[in-house]
Amino acid sequence: MSRVWIKNFSDYQDETVTVRGWIDNLRSSGKIGFLQIRDGSGVVQGVVSRAEVDEASWTTLKQLAQEASVEVVGKVVEDSRAPSGYEMHVSELREVGGAEEYPISPKEHGTAFLMEHRHLWLRSSRQRAALKIRSEVAHGIRDFYSERDFVLIDSPILTPAACEGTSTLFETDYFGDSAFLSQSGQLYLEPAAAAFGKVYCFGPTFRAEKSKTRRHLMEFWMVEPEVAFMEFPELCELAEQFITYLVARVLETCQEELKRLERDCSVLEAVQAPFPRIRYHQALEILAENGKDLEVGDDFGAEEETILASAFDRPVMITHFPASAKAFYMQPDADDPDLALALDVLAPEGYGEIIGGSQRIHDLDLLSRRIDEHDLPREAFQWYLDIRQFGTFPHSGFGMGLERFVAWVAKLPHLRETIPYPRMLNKIYP
Amino acid sequence: MSRVWIKNFSDYQDETVTVRGWIDNLRSSGKIGFLQIRDGSGVVQGVVSRAEVDEASWTTLKQLAQEASVEVVGKVVEDSRAPSGYEMHVSELREVGGAEEYPISPKEHGTAFLMEHRHLWLRSSRQRAALKIRSEVAHGIRDFYSERDFVLIDSPILTPAACEGTSTLFETDYFGDSAFLSQSGQLYLEPAAAAFGKVYCFGPTFRAEKSKTRRHLMEFWMVEPEVAFMEFPELCELAEQFITYLVARVLETCQEELKRLERDCSVLEAVQAPFPRIRYHQALEILAENGKDLEVGDDFGAEEETILASAFDRPVMITHFPASAKAFYMQPDADDPDLALALDVLAPEGYGEIIGGSQRIHDLDLLSRRIDEHDLPREAFQWYLDIRQFGTFPHSGFGMGLERFVAWVAKLPHLRETIPYPRMLNKIYP
Repeated sequence: MSRVWIKNFSDYQDETVTVRGWIDNLRSSGKIGFLQIRDGSGVVQGVVSRAEVDEASWTTLKQLAQEASVEVVGKVVEDSRAPSGYEMHVSELREVGGAEEYPISPKEHGTAFLMEHRHLWLRSSRQRAALKIRSEVAHGIRDFYSERDFVLIDSPILTPAACEGTSTLFETDYFGDSAFLSQSGQLYLEPAAAAFGKVYCFGPTFRAEKSKTRRHLMEFWMVEPEVAFMEFPELCELAEQFITYLVARVLETCQEELKRLERDCSVLEAVQAPFPRIRYHQALEILAENGKDLEVGDDFGAEEETILASAFDRPVMITHFPASAKAFYMQPDADDPDLALALDVLAPEGYGEIIGGSQRIHDLDLLSRRIDEHDLPREAFQWYLDIRQFGTFPHSGFGMGLERFVAWVAKLPHLRETIPYPRMLNKIYP
Repeated sequence: MSRVWIKNFSDYQDETVTVRGWIDNLRSSGKIGFLQIRDGSGVVQGVVSRAEVDEASWTTLKQLAQEASVEVVGKVVEDSRAPSGYEMHVSELREVGGAEEYPISPKEHGTAFLMEHRHLWLRSSRQRAALKIRSEVAHGIRDFYSERDFVLIDSPILTPAACEGTSTLFETDYFGDSAFLSQSGQLYLEPAAAAFGKVYCFGPTFRAEKSKTRRHLMEFWMVEPEVAFMEFPELCELAEQFITYLVARVLETCQEELKRLERDCSVLEAVQAPFPRIRYHQALEILAENGKDLEVGDDFGAEEETILASAFDRPVMITHFPASAKAFYMQPDADDPDLALALDVLAPEGYGEIIGGSQRIHDLDLLSRRIDEHDLPREAFQWYLDIRQFGTFPHSGFGMGLERFVAWVAKLPHLRETIPYPRMLNKIYP
């Protein structure tokens, strides 16, 4: 009898099927046992009645441990009380692998312990819910760009030049040269935009930052679109469409997971365009009203981001930052060249920046000056300058960190639960 | 007037639209000029008639260079002779950015030169076709697994232990410890299979191999599915379904690109299940018939793979390799434990191995012995052994290199054309 996935039980009503999975939980008393069987596609309750199974199955039931792997044969029976709508009337039960002294019990464990056992912690229902949402968001991101005719341009991880200082870069030997793990694919997308018009990359990025906050990972995934001839107002619209699309996708496909995480979905349902848009100087005013006096040019920290985000019921877009506080490649505002056409999008509920982007400088002379002003090695950027030398074009793009987005959407307390194997300070096992 | 993409011209027939793009090619004589305008979504011919444009536009036309960026206003006119079905009757032409001395001319250039100018070479029609196919295949891979309820589990790039020797690994300092760039996500997928049943990863992988063949890249993308309770025959079916799905997808979505690359599509159309399946010892016989006498246990090199693949008109699946020649984690065949339940899929036309996979050992004692026999540090593999300690389960998976698949499907001579920014021996710029 071939295996059936629990998710597909509605196709097998009143049929006898075989399920293979793990014991999520079990209890038995006298002549009846109840198994919570998990096969990765879902969880179903198996009812084992002593009168209806052979001696071997009953003996197996009596010695089953949490997380033992099993093969269960039984009848699929509709049950309106069951979360999945079905339960299984078991006729045969076989243990595939035991699980004596499984280290993660239903009691509370400390984070350090759970992180050491990440390979097993993945099986818990909260972690499954979080990573299922991650998987859906990741596919949603690709669908969003694919549906809009963007071409995927995988940017390289091994890169030759350090953009801005090497202190937060992982370095490796590349056949005698130094190479650094990429922090962004943007520079590699810009040339590709001249070939394909609309491009994006979506891959791992790295930051060797000695920080230990709930908002940082050393290795995280970032999606970056870049569009030829797109100017700043359109960029803001793209960011807005992107976030509303992804939130709607999660609401559509992850109801069960959001419920498991006790996520208040009304907050997500409110994420509709248009998002509030404020300029940097207005952000300073909001901060001052809340007792935070920043100097013009100061960056927003976690605390400032939380104050700003709290002023709105949906993501807020902050634009027109002082150029001096932003990256060398950002296009100055035509009306006030001291301002950069830069965009930060802050998530609500204290999750901070989820998107950062800008229009890029397309004037060769201006970009060359900026590279010199920032003391960057012009030689290493020759290919990047070439894009302004040969058929230059206005263009814009942004980056969104997958983990930050997932943390917000799922309202997870820490980024470490948004990625299967988090890489944090001094934390690289398993 | 807002910008229109060339791809969407059929929605704008007889309307006047604005296109922004680059001059792919141009010629003019007397009172008429013909521009090949490329905007990334397509290429269209713009016809500029002196009588119908203002003086400024005509002057612009006269000094336009290949790869200059332009803004063109004109009427969309149906033209059955045009590859796109349309041409553009230009009314205004404006240069956005010049392109004096664009280094890549229509004449032949050497590979070293083109690779140094990869950021510009991307604009050529062959490179665009190849990378468009890559983009489609990558999305097809994700759709294939998503449609089959696989959960995406991004495996980490920074990994602590070297699986089998460090000679082909890129190493980096991780806050005082050594970390290595991942060569495979498999070990990280196996624990996740116990949480989600069906999982896959698809990300960059790294091999610091001092080889300079057309079949090697230092950085390449690999997709790896892993399925709980899946045994070897089902694994072979999954690999077969996967390849036929992807080939059909390319045939469906990339006709224009295949044509540009002069790909013989009949070869691809023949890629239908079932694929021929032979065992390792039969492969040795085929090789012997072709004058290649290998010892049992010998690996197949490029030459052997080409001979084997040439014996069939579609991908060939080779199974049951000597266990001693394969990785430590491969499940032995029940009928002959000296053989491993391993699968290699060879592409036709000399493209070599595109898939390698196996059923995994799920018996704790056997796996522990294999780890010892291979002199691997058991401590580093404790978490991997845990999966056999707590609810072990038969499972199988494989890996497919994106670039090798794309090279075959597009019949490209060298892997370097299948990835936007190839990383090869001594080649990391741009």
